[in-house]
Amino acid sequence: MSEKILLPSSGRHTAEGHILPVRIYFEDTDFSGVVYHASYVRFFERGRTEYVRLLDVHHSALDAGEAGEPMAFAVHRMEIEFKRPARIDDVVEVVTRHKETRGARIILNQSIRRAGTILVDAVVTVVLVNKEGRACRIPELLAERFAAAPR
Amino acid sequence: MSEKILLPSSGRHTAEGHILPVRIYFEDTDFSGVVYHASYVRFFERGRTEYVRLLDVHHSALDAGEAGEPMAFAVHRMEIEFKRPARIDDVVEVVTRHKETRGARIILNQSIRRAGTILVDAVVTVVLVNKEGRACRIPELLAERFAAAPR
Amino acid sequence: MSEKILLPSSGRHTAEGHILPVRIYFEDTDFSGVVYHASYVRFFERGRTEYVRLLDVHHSALDAGEAGEPMAFAVHRMEIEFKRPARIDDVVEVVTRHKETRGARIILNQSIRRAGTILVDAVVTVVLVNKEGRACRIPELLAERFAAAPR
Amino acid sequence: MSEKILLPSSGRHTAEGHILPVRIYFEDTDFSGVVYHASYVRFFERGRTEYVRLLDVHHSALDAGEAGEPMAFAVHRMEIEFKRPARIDDVVEVVTRHKETRGARIILNQSIRRAGTILVDAVVTVVLVNKEGRACRIPELLAERFAAAPR
Repeated sequence: MSEKILLPSSGRHTAEGHILPVRIYFEDTDFSGVVYHASYVRFFERGRTEYVRLLDVHHSALDAGEAGEPMAFAVHRMEIEFKRPARIDDVVEVVTRHKETRGARIILNQSIRRAGTILVDAVVTVVLVNKEGRACRIPELLAERFAAAPR
Repeated sequence: MSEKILLPSSGRHTAEGHILPVRIYFEDTDFSGVVYHASYVRFFERGRTEYVRLLDVHHSALDAGEAGEPMAFAVHRMEIEFKRPARIDDVVEVVTRHKETRGARIILNQSIRRAGTILVDAVVTVVLVNKEGRACRIPELLAERFAAAPR
Repeated sequence: MSEKILLPSSGRHTAEGHILPVRIYFEDTDFSGVVYHASYVRFFERGRTEYVRLLDVHHSALDAGEAGEPMAFAVHRMEIEFKRPARIDDVVEVVTRHKETRGARIILNQSIRRAGTILVDAVVTVVLVNKEGRACRIPELLAERFAAAPR
Repeated sequence: MSEKILLPSSGRHTAEGHILPVRIYFEDTDFSGVVYHASYVRFFERGRTEYVRLLDVHHSALDAGEAGEPMAFAVHRMEIEFKRPARIDDVVEVVTRHKETRGARIILNQSIRRAGTILVDAVVTVVLVNKEGRACRIPELLAERFAAAPR
């Protein structure tokens, strides 16, 4: 049988940005009956991870020092607007678009939508930090890959 | 573009059981560098959810009273052995096999493996509970679907 | 022995706002070695819960319809700035201050600090929603309690 | 004002074992209306962390190499029975008792109870692992502290 079918989706780059499908599970909901707000923050992180994976940027490789010293992405700032709730069993899409790079900061527009309706909207600023937690210049290697991302 | 590509994987039933691929994200790991043990417990739940989804059993429908009164699956018992850790960026597979049904209890064998190596092994007993938390007889509707599951 | 000692802290209202102490556990960290950013979002929710608990507002009572129909708090908007990371075993404080109430919206200033240093800063807008997810007017009963909160 | 009041509870050792009080928050529940089963797994980990903290064993110190090389606790095996659910706003107690030490393995009895009623019961085996994930002999330093724990 094809192993390809059994890979989790990494989504894909489209004209409107990178799109990652996410299924809502028990773990994502709370007693109010809908998705817990911090779960969307986790979904945004999955979206960013798959967005950079398709640019051939991997957390494990960054952690291993591929770009010089060991590094990891860290979120510097988020503005999130929660418009409508998702529910158990829903399939939602995490949309990630590069907005701009300013020095060490990469600013992304992200949203979560269901059947074309936007549920959550966010602007997220990420930086690369080294093991001491200091923000690093974006390595040339990565800057080129980001520059090549569809937008 | 095909929307099908953008659905998250629900895995599939195979001769060795239901198999769901899962990607390891930041949220699943802890400061020790590997996956946090309770994350595997969440992965097992995703595996069970997709296992029953392919049998056309949906949490949202159960919650809406499809099988009589509103119901939800609840875990009654787990035995878990953690053998080897998964790491950031890994793809693991959640394998779910029906072991037996005893009255109201459905007993499943579950494991998490990476490239054929078992990382975590579990025996999980689930029950259906109503809104008061009392275990329900497995509705005929579901019993038939479970009976029809590949094993 | 005193049972009081064995209650989890609900924090307390002070001149600078409500303060809730929180311990950093394995579950809160990620493989980069520090606290996962979405964990702070959970801590802010704990802070708000204890802030309203000390005003005698309880999620369980709201859910049971104490204020008319069943209701729950929902986050409408968050602006978060992540300045410095917390680490395993740290004790941090969640500080919650009422900023203003605008119609159905309650706007709070929240921060997380360690030994007097601010790690994370946030402005959070919450609303009360009914079971259909529609924002409710703040019930008189609650409005009075919020008005009486130290600020 | 007293800073002591603002420390989170580390619980205490009693004749029946170490007891840690835990408050149930939004993040711990799921759409079925009660606590999500994997949340209890997190609570057990908090209980173990505070149990060892009162023995002056700290994850941060182990990670920094206090006991020789850098080490972390890892769960090797869990048997969990979920008897009754906890709900939003509940206060539960995590009870942790040393059962036995067998070579590199520390076996603990843990339970979660509310107002004297046991909700969840567990037997948990933990080991210390080094950065390569290999189980380490329990360092003399720790063995002595465990031996001195009330039981």
